[in-house]
Amino acid sequence: MGHGTYLTSKDLSARNKAIEVIKSKFSEIIEDLMNGRNPTLVIRKRTLTNTIYDEANGLLKLGEGVLKRSFLNVNESKKFMQTLLIASIIYESLKNNEYPTIRDLYYRGKHTIKYRDLVTRKVKEENTWDEQKESDSVIRDLEVFIDMLREDMLILSKEKGKVVGNMRIRSGDDVIDLSKMGHGAYSIEPTPDLIEFLDYDVEYVLVIEKDAVFQQLHRIGYWRTNKALLVTSAGQPDRATRRFVRRLNEELNLPVYILTDSDPYGFYIYSVFRVGSITLSYESERLATPKARFLGVMMSDVYGSPKLGKKPYLSESERKNYIIKAKEMDIKRAKELMNYKWFQTPRWKVEIDIFLEKLSKLEIEALTSKGLKFLADTYIPHKIEVGDWLA
Amino acid sequence: MGHGTYLTSKDLSARNKAIEVIKSKFSEIIEDLMNGRNPTLVIRKRTLTNTIYDEANGLLKLGEGVLKRSFLNVNESKKFMQTLLIASIIYESLKNNEYPTIRDLYYRGKHTIKYRDLVTRKVKEENTWDEQKESDSVIRDLEVFIDMLREDMLILSKEKGKVVGNMRIRSGDDVIDLSKMGHGAYSIEPTPDLIEFLDYDVEYVLVIEKDAVFQQLHRIGYWRTNKALLVTSAGQPDRATRRFVRRLNEELNLPVYILTDSDPYGFYIYSVFRVGSITLSYESERLATPKARFLGVMMSDVYGSPKLGKKPYLSESERKNYIIKAKEMDIKRAKELMNYKWFQTPRWKVEIDIFLEKLSKLEIEALTSKGLKFLADTYIPHKIEVGDWLA
Repeated sequence: MGHGTYLTSKDLSARNKAIEVIKSKFSEIIEDLMNGRNPTLVIRKRTLTNTIYDEANGLLKLGEGVLKRSFLNVNESKKFMQTLLIASIIYESLKNNEYPTIRDLYYRGKHTIKYRDLVTRKVKEENTWDEQKESDSVIRDLEVFIDMLREDMLILSKEKGKVVGNMRIRSGDDVIDLSKMGHGAYSIEPTPDLIEFLDYDVEYVLVIEKDAVFQQLHRIGYWRTNKALLVTSAGQPDRATRRFVRRLNEELNLPVYILTDSDPYGFYIYSVFRVGSITLSYESERLATPKARFLGVMMSDVYGSPKLGKKPYLSESERKNYIIKAKEMDIKRAKELMNYKWFQTPRWKVEIDIFLEKLSKLEIEALTSKGLKFLADTYIPHKIEVGDWLA
Repeated sequence: MGHGTYLTSKDLSARNKAIEVIKSKFSEIIEDLMNGRNPTLVIRKRTLTNTIYDEANGLLKLGEGVLKRSFLNVNESKKFMQTLLIASIIYESLKNNEYPTIRDLYYRGKHTIKYRDLVTRKVKEENTWDEQKESDSVIRDLEVFIDMLREDMLILSKEKGKVVGNMRIRSGDDVIDLSKMGHGAYSIEPTPDLIEFLDYDVEYVLVIEKDAVFQQLHRIGYWRTNKALLVTSAGQPDRATRRFVRRLNEELNLPVYILTDSDPYGFYIYSVFRVGSITLSYESERLATPKARFLGVMMSDVYGSPKLGKKPYLSESERKNYIIKAKEMDIKRAKELMNYKWFQTPRWKVEIDIFLEKLSKLEIEALTSKGLKFLADTYIPHKIEVGDWLA
């Protein structure tokens, strides 16, 4: 039974970089402490009112608003100390070649501090935090403060994204050929910034919401015959999948097409890839893919649209068998989407209007049930060819 | 934009085999129809009363009870026709090089049949099925009837299982080196019976419930230093992961250790690997790993056990910070587990008794927060070395 740790060179350099950044960002705090000054953290606010939609770049970002956290302010000192606590735990874990998760960090920092009340002179107890959402929030503050994502600090998380296609990448110390995965797939690492793109023969990226549909298209070699890189987010995309897709688009200039169910939840998944979450706008500067294209399934694919001069892909009787009635939640979500700037285009309006008129939705499986060949040889390539996608 | 389909040789031979089996199993039905006899399907019952725990082999299986479905019996004819409908759709999809999912099959078979009522002479309508659970149930009947799992008929599904380690496998037409996955992992195919094990330098299989913990152990090269094959089920295991683990145990004789949270849900995940689901016992004959070992986290690891002469891995103060109070659901599940034969051992009784006494649970992340090295260099290898696992 052997012991010991194997570290890849990529991880080692990422580690050293994060250590340097944390050191330098906190050096002022340490100086203040050494010189008897009241140390204060100045961090950009993560509030909704400080969130801006940058139309030119098509993404959400934080504005200039900041919050201050002083050590010697009763209202701020707990948050101040929580921030320093998480920074020191992460710093230690970087030094010790650890790979914590945010759940680990919650546990590592969770303890009870005993102190004497200055007024009553009684011993009191205070927990560093009680719930993970508290430590998570402090981790987010730290990410904003040092301008690094948690992944850059080698904080890991579960990872659902998969990829196959004609591309070779370097991950860790290995070269991986994404076209040699057999019937399986390559599961994307939780730190996708450490991936190096080597060579590829790919014309576009097709991101598929549903893992099972990804499996189907992979199995008939869609990526071979269409020079596509197939990615699945297996539902709501996680951070690593979003960052991976963004890098493919930004660094390799590959167009990104998103394929989901035809319903407001599918549109929302596209929105997460495209712009990110409103409440986590600081991430979106690095995780969002503003140029991502919504390929389908569109409401106008299901019903056609006289306005667009577009015929439906489904016949009346197919619709009868495949259509599902919208639920309360779907309608609520559709109305939410209409508040987002990036859905306020004439073309998206057509789609959302059809949904609100028909109050119906369609799963992508309804298309594969017309024959996988229909999806693979007709629907997807045709829509890409004629440019029938939404930005 | 190229069209066409790429089929692996493994898929082609699997396809032909399934076609032959379906043909032969239904030949009698066709003969009956040709000769004017009332065709009848005889299928082993999938009911709880027809489910047997085979103690010698440690798995659930179907008993000898059968049900009959005749075409010319009003109470049975709908089910009879549903079974033939699903068989013909699957047969066609095998012939047409399709890879349906069970959701596809639901959609493909869903349609309305018009007929004239023999008594009232009015035209009536009847749907083949309305909900997927109906078609799923018929697919299960077919699996039992032809004694093949759906995967053998190239029915795909979403797939969460991942693997890394010192092993080379053949999947499709590719040879895949599971030790060359970089920081990512190999995502197991939905048809794991088509995987060929080539060469390996592995002493045991470690199955980790939580994907994030899998990522952590992978990242420090646990599989390198311990000659382990690391697998994650990413929560409740799917069929492919279960079948993959079973094959590793059965064909390569590798011991299988399961690592989950210390709570009745974690014990239940072990139970699914070990025996399978009671309501789907027909699967368990091929998906279960009766020799799977529960490595932890055990209640006796958390609290120690005077009865076992075992010291806890956690100190009093660690427990104070890490322990979570059990929920109603946990207690309910613990009591359910006690009904299962395979939990009615003195050793499991100790564990469940500690749980019911303390009404507490512990997440595996609480151990990694003691340091990933603790988990990787102490906890796991020590428990394997001294044989501190439950069967």
